[in-house]
Amino acid sequence: MSVVTSFQNPIVKRIRAVASRKGREREGCFWAEGIHITMEALETGWPMERLVWCPDLLTSEVARESIQRANADAVMVSRSVFRKISGRENPAGIGALLATKHRSLGALDVESGAFFVVLDRVGDPGNLGTVIRTVASAGGDAVILVGASTDPFDPRSVRAAMGSLFTLPVVAEGRADGFLDWARKNGLNLVGSSSKGNVHYREAEYRRPVALMLGSEQHGLDDTLARAVGTSVHIPMAGRASSLNLSAAAAVLAFTASSAGTR
Amino acid sequence: MSVVTSFQNPIVKRIRAVASRKGREREGCFWAEGIHITMEALETGWPMERLVWCPDLLTSEVARESIQRANADAVMVSRSVFRKISGRENPAGIGALLATKHRSLGALDVESGAFFVVLDRVGDPGNLGTVIRTVASAGGDAVILVGASTDPFDPRSVRAAMGSLFTLPVVAEGRADGFLDWARKNGLNLVGSSSKGNVHYREAEYRRPVALMLGSEQHGLDDTLARAVGTSVHIPMAGRASSLNLSAAAAVLAFTASSAGTR
Repeated sequence: MSVVTSFQNPIVKRIRAVASRKGREREGCFWAEGIHITMEALETGWPMERLVWCPDLLTSEVARESIQRANADAVMVSRSVFRKISGRENPAGIGALLATKHRSLGALDVESGAFFVVLDRVGDPGNLGTVIRTVASAGGDAVILVGASTDPFDPRSVRAAMGSLFTLPVVAEGRADGFLDWARKNGLNLVGSSSKGNVHYREAEYRRPVALMLGSEQHGLDDTLARAVGTSVHIPMAGRASSLNLSAAAAVLAFTASSAGTR
Repeated sequence: MSVVTSFQNPIVKRIRAVASRKGREREGCFWAEGIHITMEALETGWPMERLVWCPDLLTSEVARESIQRANADAVMVSRSVFRKISGRENPAGIGALLATKHRSLGALDVESGAFFVVLDRVGDPGNLGTVIRTVASAGGDAVILVGASTDPFDPRSVRAAMGSLFTLPVVAEGRADGFLDWARKNGLNLVGSSSKGNVHYREAEYRRPVALMLGSEQHGLDDTLARAVGTSVHIPMAGRASSLNLSAAAAVLAFTASSAGTR
């Protein structure tokens, strides 16, 4: 098998095109990079268009063996080509062009023990990826995005999610009304997080099926969502601190709800 | 007062010089940017060398009034100069050149209710800043950095800390031994986080004064530190997830220890 050395190679051009959201929407795929993330994509069977690796950069024996075993369409590229497509300073020399999946609320199973995290207008892709990783770790069933949100397939989100994107469904619903209709139909216990919440987050009942709802860092929960919550919880802040980072708040709440659900 | 329009102005050159760690160490100062962060620096009385703002960019009336009231050495710069010194896509038009503070363990008060978070070899400045913000919110008394760590005054850390850097002491100790000597002398309860910890993090006793110790994302806790902990806790992971992001793990543990301490 030959090594691609040209920046004009169609695969190389395609990978560079999907760096932007528009490009990902047009092409229906995204770029995921790094040993752990690529191995997770292979092991979870995520639809893979191309596995891309660089013999000069990839030193991990485990990763090389996985490539041999993998039933994937692999392409080797030169060091300079990999550097060109990589978003990293020290690329590990492996990545994959993966299909984007768009899921709908209707396709989610809502079992009696279900536990969802809902983000309203999340703007920062790193935060979104970190929340996806956290919710997967806490045993959540999906992350649901409401409102104009950043793209879960943004390279910064993919990187921060560390492979959890391949196992945890992420649904971009868009409309608050659409989410609320679905939530009512499925009897979800809506617990919203707000600095003005009247229940201490440790005292709340996270009766399942539950949806933990967090607002954007700038604006908090949208009015329509805020009015619909059954319980509005707050995380008390010490000293001058006025708020937690979104991903830190999500971690505190998801692990509290998670332990509450398994008591 | 005149508006600086030259990129060759000494203040402008100084701000650009402190973008690197070397520059910050040489100059003894760092650049903090944005309305909230600059206001926090003013209100907490952090040593400020220069307040820098751009009349064309700064639209916030509150911020403009604060500048008027502030007893700070202010300099106005043009839009193009501010864009040159700013690390942001849409700069708010305000920032400050602030003195770096280097604190030592010996200068920390260890009261009976004290609660510290210790990070071993933290590499990502965004993670570090987020942990600083989280620990301040959870009522912690300091963040202590052990081993070769990223710089808390890195612009990404300053940004993620959202002003908590001005109220929460951050101590870069460097040596694990130095930290352990100090911890023993002060009777600290050392609680370490590890995927191999034998105590569920919710079952641990966070008796104060306590130090929560978290290892680097890549390597976990250094052997010397791991051997010294009194309690080794783990956060159980669901499904395929193998670990939490460092800042998410710190949030879960800090808020658990925080509530444990106030029960």
